[in-house]
Amino acid sequence: MPEISTRGQEMPASPIRRLVPLAMEAINRGTKVYRLNIGQPDLPTPPEAFEALRHIDRKVLEYSPSDGLPSLREKLRSYYSRFHIDVEADDIIITSGGSEAVLFAFMACLDPGDEIIVPEPAYANYMAFAISAGAKIVTVPSSIDEGFRLPPVEKFEALITPRTKGILICNPNNPTGYLYTMKEMLQIRDMVKAHNLYLFSDEVYREFCYTGAPYISAFHLPGIEEQVVLIDSVSKRYNECGIRIGALITKDKELRKTVMKFCQARLSPPLLGQIVAEASIDATPEYMLETYNEYVERRNLLIDEINKIPGCYSPIPMGAFYTVARLPVDDADQFCQWCLREFEYEGATVFMAPASGFYSTPGLGRDEVRIAYVLNKDDLKAAMTVLRKALESYPGRKTD
Amino acid sequence: MPEISTRGQEMPASPIRRLVPLAMEAINRGTKVYRLNIGQPDLPTPPEAFEALRHIDRKVLEYSPSDGLPSLREKLRSYYSRFHIDVEADDIIITSGGSEAVLFAFMACLDPGDEIIVPEPAYANYMAFAISAGAKIVTVPSSIDEGFRLPPVEKFEALITPRTKGILICNPNNPTGYLYTMKEMLQIRDMVKAHNLYLFSDEVYREFCYTGAPYISAFHLPGIEEQVVLIDSVSKRYNECGIRIGALITKDKELRKTVMKFCQARLSPPLLGQIVAEASIDATPEYMLETYNEYVERRNLLIDEINKIPGCYSPIPMGAFYTVARLPVDDADQFCQWCLREFEYEGATVFMAPASGFYSTPGLGRDEVRIAYVLNKDDLKAAMTVLRKALESYPGRKTD
Repeated sequence: MPEISTRGQEMPASPIRRLVPLAMEAINRGTKVYRLNIGQPDLPTPPEAFEALRHIDRKVLEYSPSDGLPSLREKLRSYYSRFHIDVEADDIIITSGGSEAVLFAFMACLDPGDEIIVPEPAYANYMAFAISAGAKIVTVPSSIDEGFRLPPVEKFEALITPRTKGILICNPNNPTGYLYTMKEMLQIRDMVKAHNLYLFSDEVYREFCYTGAPYISAFHLPGIEEQVVLIDSVSKRYNECGIRIGALITKDKELRKTVMKFCQARLSPPLLGQIVAEASIDATPEYMLETYNEYVERRNLLIDEINKIPGCYSPIPMGAFYTVARLPVDDADQFCQWCLREFEYEGATVFMAPASGFYSTPGLGRDEVRIAYVLNKDDLKAAMTVLRKALESYPGRKTD
Repeated sequence: MPEISTRGQEMPASPIRRLVPLAMEAINRGTKVYRLNIGQPDLPTPPEAFEALRHIDRKVLEYSPSDGLPSLREKLRSYYSRFHIDVEADDIIITSGGSEAVLFAFMACLDPGDEIIVPEPAYANYMAFAISAGAKIVTVPSSIDEGFRLPPVEKFEALITPRTKGILICNPNNPTGYLYTMKEMLQIRDMVKAHNLYLFSDEVYREFCYTGAPYISAFHLPGIEEQVVLIDSVSKRYNECGIRIGALITKDKELRKTVMKFCQARLSPPLLGQIVAEASIDATPEYMLETYNEYVERRNLLIDEINKIPGCYSPIPMGAFYTVARLPVDDADQFCQWCLREFEYEGATVFMAPASGFYSTPGLGRDEVRIAYVLNKDDLKAAMTVLRKALESYPGRKTD
């Protein structure tokens, strides 16, 4: 048989999906598995979305324009204006999920061998898209002991080479829940400006900021408006991950023209998802607030419970619906596998994502896990009891 | 501003979408534009599809598995068995349109610098996906004078280098409508086997074969079962291009594992599209036959009409819903633009795709256009009258 590609061999297995077969085995054994591994919200999609689906009045489910339905782009423009993100409908290109927006941004901006700098831990699939584009992700470690705040500028500056083409941030952050401050965002702005870089800014969790501190979009930063490539998605904010609708937004006309070539090659983003996304933007303030309040309560419950378990520690996430917690184990990967393979408490176990998969620097995050608070409060609380019991009986528990 | 990527600069503009702005201008002037440029069928999506949409009974539109809904994969398996394509549900990976299947096939199989050989004219977006993967498409010209049949094996053999990883065919063919014979398919099989290549086989038009000759799938070829990567899509056969559901099918387990890494990175294919696709496979034989008969009649009408226009020639397409026709002009690109920019007959003009965009060899196809017969017969007939009149008054008409 012909050989598969080197790129294919280099692609990392998804850290959040890698243990799925073990979870399936546990479920097949009759164990209840609390799924904390993946950002798949359990909350309802807005009724407006289903209403739109029921009222589709078309004879043909035809291609939409390669850059998306004009009505959706216009509606998104108006949505962004609520956040003082001042873009035109023409600046917005609809993509098949935020994922495709990241891939096309990398394809259009980065040549093979080009580098982008990313604070780690980071959303693991950035790495996969960089490998797809032949580009290199260079990471600057942030630390749980400092609440995952932005590493000092000098750490970034030290990594900038002639091949550096951009900085990538996710704000509010997946996996840490960190929310960058204005001071940090201005530091990023200064680097981007000084070194003529792209700023790739993944802001899909903007609706979920839990502190008094404001959400700062990359588009709020003066002086780099044309260097920002904003990545967005409706998946998380309207609980409709399955419809695969995201957006790539840039004011750089030349870049848009290039991204459009990739868009035209794949013909169009999903039509039905666009119809649903457009309707979802009409979700009521009550719906949005209910979702928001639910996450606030889950966050409080989860962080309280984790920090009560001896040897565990999680900073308080300020946004999104994840946290990275430190566990009293030598190897969280082994521990997560053990939970699925060998442990249960009152018939249940927990499925967490080992945080090592979110770091590129070998050895980092080995005693950390990412937990998504996408379960209801009762389940979350039960899951934390299971975690406590698991740690009590885990043979690999740290003893110091 | 930072520079866009070289890859982005190299990406070809889509030959079928490049002239869209001119068409929009014509429409805005009040001209009726017969759209023969794009494979967007005007026929209805099956009622089963809309029925399924109306009965979606979910609270959350959540991620589907990265390889697609198990029920859809199983149903596709059973669909393929009707064509004696003997695959397991596990061999089938659901993608976001056939487009994503091509991209992931290239990403997983080809390293930068690797080559695949494709008979030309060919579907233009193959080129775009090859550029995305850093791979090189090498073309073997087929000729309108020989009805676009498979070029002699020696022409392929002459192009095989140590970097050659595969042969790509589209059967029935877009843009030519050619249907490969068993003899030709066996010739391809022998090359694939002898040189240990992948055979990428795009078979999205299999429902549309108009001659007594049988449709030969790459999976029908004995001895290369594990080297075949089949590309499929429900877009064309159920008139639902907008739902973005395709499939990549391979019996090579290692390759599937690699493709799955790309699938996991983009999380999941569109959920709503999968629901619609699954329901569409239940389209009645009457629906399928009606669609089929409609294309047969359109084909006959179109080819008759074209060949009656002085200086025009089209071979009879044996499948799909396109033909490549020769026009009595020096430069079909100029002519297509002129039709949109300057010509109208009784308030109407035609929008065709210049065939040069489907060739890689410079100079080939300069007097050819691709015509998609995706309009009803009255419109097709009217469009051919417009084409005849346009050729009569076109200043660049060939006089010899």
